[in-house]
Amino acid sequence: MTLHRTLGTCYYPEHWPEAIWSEDATRMADLGLTWVRIGEFAWSRLEPSHGDLRFDWMERAIDILHGAGLKVVLGTPTATPPRWMLDRHPDMLAVDAHGRPRGFGSRRHYCFSHDGYRSEAVRITTLLAERFGRKVEAWQTDNEYGCHDTILSHSEAARRAFRDWLAQTYQSPEALNRAWGNVFWSMDYDSFDQIDLPNLTVTEPNPSHALDFRRFSSDQVARFNAAQVAAIRAHSDAPISHNYMGRIVEFDHFALGAQMEIATWDSYPLGFLEDRLEETAEFKRHYARQGDPDFQAFHHDLYRAVAARFPDHETARWWVMEQQPGPVNWAPHNPAPLPGMVRLWTWEAFAHGAECVSYFRWRQAPFAQEQYHAGLLRPDSVEAEGFHEAAEVARELRAAPQVEIAQAPVALVFDYASAWAWAVQPQGQGCDYFRLVFEVYRGLRKLGLSIDIVPPDTARLDGYGLVLVPGLITLSDALKQALQDTDAQVLLGPRSNAKTRTLSIPLPLPPAFPGLDVTVSRVETLRRDMPVPMEGAGHVVLWQETLEGTAKVMDRDAAGHPVSMRDGHVTYLGGWPDADFLRHLLLRACAEAGIATLDLPPDIRLRQAGATRFVFNHGPDSVEFDGMILPPAGVARQT
Amino acid sequence: MTLHRTLGTCYYPEHWPEAIWSEDATRMADLGLTWVRIGEFAWSRLEPSHGDLRFDWMERAIDILHGAGLKVVLGTPTATPPRWMLDRHPDMLAVDAHGRPRGFGSRRHYCFSHDGYRSEAVRITTLLAERFGRKVEAWQTDNEYGCHDTILSHSEAARRAFRDWLAQTYQSPEALNRAWGNVFWSMDYDSFDQIDLPNLTVTEPNPSHALDFRRFSSDQVARFNAAQVAAIRAHSDAPISHNYMGRIVEFDHFALGAQMEIATWDSYPLGFLEDRLEETAEFKRHYARQGDPDFQAFHHDLYRAVAARFPDHETARWWVMEQQPGPVNWAPHNPAPLPGMVRLWTWEAFAHGAECVSYFRWRQAPFAQEQYHAGLLRPDSVEAEGFHEAAEVARELRAAPQVEIAQAPVALVFDYASAWAWAVQPQGQGCDYFRLVFEVYRGLRKLGLSIDIVPPDTARLDGYGLVLVPGLITLSDALKQALQDTDAQVLLGPRSNAKTRTLSIPLPLPPAFPGLDVTVSRVETLRRDMPVPMEGAGHVVLWQETLEGTAKVMDRDAAGHPVSMRDGHVTYLGGWPDADFLRHLLLRACAEAGIATLDLPPDIRLRQAGATRFVFNHGPDSVEFDGMILPPAGVARQT
Amino acid sequence: MTLHRTLGTCYYPEHWPEAIWSEDATRMADLGLTWVRIGEFAWSRLEPSHGDLRFDWMERAIDILHGAGLKVVLGTPTATPPRWMLDRHPDMLAVDAHGRPRGFGSRRHYCFSHDGYRSEAVRITTLLAERFGRKVEAWQTDNEYGCHDTILSHSEAARRAFRDWLAQTYQSPEALNRAWGNVFWSMDYDSFDQIDLPNLTVTEPNPSHALDFRRFSSDQVARFNAAQVAAIRAHSDAPISHNYMGRIVEFDHFALGAQMEIATWDSYPLGFLEDRLEETAEFKRHYARQGDPDFQAFHHDLYRAVAARFPDHETARWWVMEQQPGPVNWAPHNPAPLPGMVRLWTWEAFAHGAECVSYFRWRQAPFAQEQYHAGLLRPDSVEAEGFHEAAEVARELRAAPQVEIAQAPVALVFDYASAWAWAVQPQGQGCDYFRLVFEVYRGLRKLGLSIDIVPPDTARLDGYGLVLVPGLITLSDALKQALQDTDAQVLLGPRSNAKTRTLSIPLPLPPAFPGLDVTVSRVETLRRDMPVPMEGAGHVVLWQETLEGTAKVMDRDAAGHPVSMRDGHVTYLGGWPDADFLRHLLLRACAEAGIATLDLPPDIRLRQAGATRFVFNHGPDSVEFDGMILPPAGVARQT
Ligand SMILES: [Zn+2]
Ligand SMILES: [Zn+2]
Ligand SMILES: [Zn+2]
Repeated sequence: MTLHRTLGTCYYPEHWPEAIWSEDATRMADLGLTWVRIGEFAWSRLEPSHGDLRFDWMERAIDILHGAGLKVVLGTPTATPPRWMLDRHPDMLAVDAHGRPRGFGSRRHYCFSHDGYRSEAVRITTLLAERFGRKVEAWQTDNEYGCHDTILSHSEAARRAFRDWLAQTYQSPEALNRAWGNVFWSMDYDSFDQIDLPNLTVTEPNPSHALDFRRFSSDQVARFNAAQVAAIRAHSDAPISHNYMGRIVEFDHFALGAQMEIATWDSYPLGFLEDRLEETAEFKRHYARQGDPDFQAFHHDLYRAVAARFPDHETARWWVMEQQPGPVNWAPHNPAPLPGMVRLWTWEAFAHGAECVSYFRWRQAPFAQEQYHAGLLRPDSVEAEGFHEAAEVARELRAAPQVEIAQAPVALVFDYASAWAWAVQPQGQGCDYFRLVFEVYRGLRKLGLSIDIVPPDTARLDGYGLVLVPGLITLSDALKQALQDTDAQVLLGPRSNAKTRTLSIPLPLPPAFPGLDVTVSRVETLRRDMPVPMEGAGHVVLWQETLEGTAKVMDRDAAGHPVSMRDGHVTYLGGWPDADFLRHLLLRACAEAGIATLDLPPDIRLRQAGATRFVFNHGPDSVEFDGMILPPAGVARQT
Repeated sequence: MTLHRTLGTCYYPEHWPEAIWSEDATRMADLGLTWVRIGEFAWSRLEPSHGDLRFDWMERAIDILHGAGLKVVLGTPTATPPRWMLDRHPDMLAVDAHGRPRGFGSRRHYCFSHDGYRSEAVRITTLLAERFGRKVEAWQTDNEYGCHDTILSHSEAARRAFRDWLAQTYQSPEALNRAWGNVFWSMDYDSFDQIDLPNLTVTEPNPSHALDFRRFSSDQVARFNAAQVAAIRAHSDAPISHNYMGRIVEFDHFALGAQMEIATWDSYPLGFLEDRLEETAEFKRHYARQGDPDFQAFHHDLYRAVAARFPDHETARWWVMEQQPGPVNWAPHNPAPLPGMVRLWTWEAFAHGAECVSYFRWRQAPFAQEQYHAGLLRPDSVEAEGFHEAAEVARELRAAPQVEIAQAPVALVFDYASAWAWAVQPQGQGCDYFRLVFEVYRGLRKLGLSIDIVPPDTARLDGYGLVLVPGLITLSDALKQALQDTDAQVLLGPRSNAKTRTLSIPLPLPPAFPGLDVTVSRVETLRRDMPVPMEGAGHVVLWQETLEGTAKVMDRDAAGHPVSMRDGHVTYLGGWPDADFLRHLLLRACAEAGIATLDLPPDIRLRQAGATRFVFNHGPDSVEFDGMILPPAGVARQT
Repeated sequence: MTLHRTLGTCYYPEHWPEAIWSEDATRMADLGLTWVRIGEFAWSRLEPSHGDLRFDWMERAIDILHGAGLKVVLGTPTATPPRWMLDRHPDMLAVDAHGRPRGFGSRRHYCFSHDGYRSEAVRITTLLAERFGRKVEAWQTDNEYGCHDTILSHSEAARRAFRDWLAQTYQSPEALNRAWGNVFWSMDYDSFDQIDLPNLTVTEPNPSHALDFRRFSSDQVARFNAAQVAAIRAHSDAPISHNYMGRIVEFDHFALGAQMEIATWDSYPLGFLEDRLEETAEFKRHYARQGDPDFQAFHHDLYRAVAARFPDHETARWWVMEQQPGPVNWAPHNPAPLPGMVRLWTWEAFAHGAECVSYFRWRQAPFAQEQYHAGLLRPDSVEAEGFHEAAEVARELRAAPQVEIAQAPVALVFDYASAWAWAVQPQGQGCDYFRLVFEVYRGLRKLGLSIDIVPPDTARLDGYGLVLVPGLITLSDALKQALQDTDAQVLLGPRSNAKTRTLSIPLPLPPAFPGLDVTVSRVETLRRDMPVPMEGAGHVVLWQETLEGTAKVMDRDAAGHPVSMRDGHVTYLGGWPDADFLRHLLLRACAEAGIATLDLPPDIRLRQAGATRFVFNHGPDSVEFDGMILPPAGVARQT
């Protein structure tokens, strides 16, 4: 399976004098770009007041880009409703958990549950699709759902919609009371109209209440996006995409993946390292100019899986829609990338199967919120560092435009609902689902492995040698069966199948996995500074379960308590492994599965793309590996 | 003076199928339990809608428990008003300091000042007392007043009630203006209706204003509780109790103690260590599975004193109503207790005079907020660790059911109003009344001493060799006289008798103690990292006073400034002592008082119960003491 | 140029029985005081209800003070509007950034934009000026503008006024949209009535929006003060002052300086060290009882420059209106000053040109918010430590009442708008304008230099050998010309002339300084723990620019990138220097400018006052310097 690799950029014709659009387009084409994304923040210029449509400039911009041989992704502008929209829908604003409306003046200020705003979003999308549906080569809906913590809204609109959602889900208050266990603290409801959103309670709300609000909120995103997709489809055959973000888990991306041909994401390695990873200061210093060595790869693999949800597709189509090309403006600290990293990030995306890598943005804006966010060009149109690295990739691509995609030997299940469940009921500080899964992913990568991330309703696991299911709160019937059916080594736990869908403890006690006689009889959470030493390598940290049953004990802690137990090909892990214990677990499982592993230098990562093996040096120093010397930010292709 | 020691548990029949109630009751009795507390969260099942009373199931539950030979404590369900109550009293919600109503969906959401809700509480209490007043063996009012920071409410109801309280207290705005010193920043009031609650001011409010709001808020709790007590008394002769918490100082527990026959508290040693103690990470690691070695003892002694406020009682009756039996769910980290600690905690309570220790809860709930809170049984009804330790205590109790209570050689005064005064006007970060008193208590315990905690209006101190009065902001006339009359060594200070009742600096300057020529001429607070070395052992930290006068200087700092001074049997301490300086002070005072002290190993604590000395090992290692080897969590009785 | 040095105190006759006023006045005069400030918090006693004027007691107090030979500064009481004012103007309260009104009960609760309150302020000021305009020797407007974070108010009054301000500034929404770059995220406005205050947006607001709100808010302070000044001028020839605070940068003090004859400030060295400086714990311990060795000097020099804005003045008149005389009550920790520091602080102010140093306060108040704030007298009227040090200064002054003021060799530009711009758009954590400028100031002081702080529109720099312009976001035309014209060495940067007045990136790129071929092609911010080593001494921290151009490279980092570049007498610095690199830069610049520097012991600071050189020991130990032994807190005068 192969696809053609391309480059692109994000361009805002409305930010620049029309006089320079042509020169910009020519320079883009000369650089070797194929795609240009436009339009996603332009609503106020497309419709300065309600009904006053000004699409002509957009048409001219598209024509100019086309004239230079470029293809266009047109964004629907719904992430930035203009100020006049508030006069039409004063109650459309999202509301934060403290009850404060989130005002106009930046972006993403709408509530997903507001029917009036959703109609406006469909209206502008329809108008754009009618005008440009046969003209543009692809679409993007909205922009970065969930960015700036915008999935959960505590508005009146959300409250009403949540009550409807609950009524449809539970049919009767009695059923809801039973499912949530509302008898616990006299929290029973007589009618759905009595149920508020779970914010501003005296102490923690019922976790079932909180989890259902998470489920509902995710559904509202899917519903909002589906309405736009339908509006586009009515007038266009071009593929549709959305640009996801890094470590946004507040909505189920798989649900959106099923709606659209292409999954894309916005990759900001340096910003993400500083603003959304828990690593130590030493780690962050070491990678300050390169970004985390696994975070981008994780999301490449995740969004490849999201893309694969779209039906009737031969191959999963996914892009990096926004690639960091230099320093950004929004992280706690904003250094410049090490020379070569823009090239490395681009090649890494291709190695994981990206169809296009698009740099954000063409020219650095000298005004408004992102003035210190680098572009390929400086504000004075001089070429910035990222430009030259993009040019180098473009040259390299001419020699090697194809990328092969093949199944990986390892599958790792990722489940958004589990992220919500852990967030709602962490049981201990620092216990976070994404962190757990990402640490497992990192552990696999440090052994030189390529990984497929798979969704929680995966029904077939053919071809994998090892399947990992850490922290998956509720196993679906499909996955449970697939895990039984597979020949692969399976590693469940910790906290896998630990809860019902409404977040109660099931009976019999977890993990209740067929053929595996293990019972989690007790759950403890531990201070971060209290690692529990294992009999062998490493420690259990943060989360420890007490295991009982007749399954074979595979690992014990130093005090002799079972930490992992196995029946057949299924191993249950009753604790959060640190890096050393995880390495031990993974090495054993790979050995048993016949998967070859490597002892990589710390900054080296690999990716097998069909017959080609990519080698990346994420470190600031040269590294010897496999007979090569990789310079800092070095990329090697081996076949 | 002796009493009979018993065990109990907290049970929620409404959480379980009626079919298993009988088996549960039998297992409780077989385990050796005497008491079962029920009902305190059951309002929505006792009265599903207003006036629709469903008491029959409760009667059946009580009958089943009685049938198994168990005694019942019935809780009034007022900590968890059902959802329909909000429709009747939309303004009954407490309001936080930011002005946000504290919504329905967990518990304790009512405002103590809301008359309508207080009437509802009296109504349901009356109905329960009418039905069960001759049937149950004891009562509990409400549940854990003050838990989740619920004493201070900033509601409109509270504002109105506070104005009334001020009018009654001061009679005229002019008197209030004088008492508070409102001239200071033109804060004078013309009428009580102008006075708001002291939240949301630009900078700190007048501390007198804030302190009066604290006094008022405490009075509202006493008033609320008294209304329930009266409702019960009208129909029942059974003793009444309330279950207090650890380190909740926002209301005057002595005032409630005077209303009810039994004081109880909820003892969660591991949760409290993590969520409400200032100790170092090293300390918290060491005691992570055992809890603080002095925190439980402190509260045992405190609530014994609270119980003693009930008039016409031969002996103070107090219980542990909820004893942690395994991991809990609500602290920042929730490890399991070291094996043996549940037994140790139980025996420690008995050693301090507890009549009953009741485990929370019988069976772990698989739903709602406390799913990971261990019970004596697992959710699947299998016996958990705590069950076996409770069984061991039950066996031991059969041999030694009696406990002797005797006066301790040392009295330590504890005063809730002082806690409010320090909170309102700490003068330096970390200056906290509870912390000061608790550090003194810990210092005494480390010398092997048993302690009586006494209230701030204690009028007789006969029989004590040493009386400690740290941080008591305003000495009552009664206590001042008692401290003059006693033969005991008296240690006053720091910050004792430092303020008037309305929190002004009195003239003559503090401590103004008869017969003690010491004047605090200046107060300083110090960075935590700037301990002031003493001439001898240890340091002064955080709080240092400049002392003048003709009394004899007992201790000086290394620069020669007096830190403690004495006239007769009264010593004034002008600074916050660290552990070493405190030890020096206490050793000297005990020597002079003829009180024997010991040099205990760090994890060992003692309690003299009449002729019996209990020895407890709070450490994770075996310790040699007094010719014995105490294992981890070891308990020894010496006679 | 010489002036007569005097001492004073702050006195609150309304806090004390009239019977002791005479004795107080006599003791003040005997102590050697000249000035007494009164009245600034007395509104509720001057006008207990609206229109009920009670000025007689004030007149009697003034007469008594005059009778003792003292001069009077009368404060307008507008920082503490009485409670009845709220009934007349319920919407006068300031509103915080969360949208919560800042309630009555402390002080400074008014919104600067409320027309009704401003009228009331003018009314009471007019009444006081009519009655006392010919009687008092000086005036103070209001009290400590900006204290307790009170410049930015998010009230409805502020919103309306901001819209007017924007309409006047931009004339049309289109012009505003262009200036702010509102096209960026569809943030265009159709009318000024659509523009809200920039709080409570989803993510950061447009920085141009935020900066304009800062400019507006500063203008509102100037407008409020000007109204009071005009009211006083109508009835009084006495000089007018306001008492500024330390490190309050939210309004442009230079604008107020132009309105009033005298600039004063409130100097609390120990409180400020703890509550508003970023230094290390070790530094804070070392200076805990002495205060920062440069913070007071900085503000002396700053407010001397503010005072110099008043037109038609031969010399800048500035005072310390409130001098800390002992421990205060409001910092995180409140130790007592080292003996001698009150004297040192007083002499240091005189050395920098103060006309008067006035101690806050005469007698410690035993009630309300500042009970633990020391006075010259204790609450019982006994002399406190500060009294004796003030007396010593008074004695010394008799021998040396005159102070000479001369121009310093070094000028440092300070610009309030730059502080707002950095705050609105820091680009990295810890990047703060005041901090940058203050670190440069400290670097100069450590070389023994005296400094003049100058405003950002300075048009002439004659007589300076070295001019420093760190972080000045937008160079005014006047200053740009002056920097070109001067013979002095000029050090620009980092981030100097980096933005337009509305906070966009200008073209050509910064610094765009005539005759200096340097371009900042990229901006990075760095983790605090990632200092970039220089080729020579020291490091760049936090902020680093990439420099291009033909100017001569003066310094490079260890990787060879230019960090400072020079054309002629102008050097541009492209990074935030740490102390060592700063020292290197300053030593080189001083050598080139022919300015002598010294290698001072760490705790020693100097100030050249005409022919006299003052030497101050800010340390807790004796120090040898220039052949003298200076004791702790020692002051020496050399001529
Ligand atoms: Zn983006
Ligand atoms: Zn409880
Ligand atoms: Zn002040």
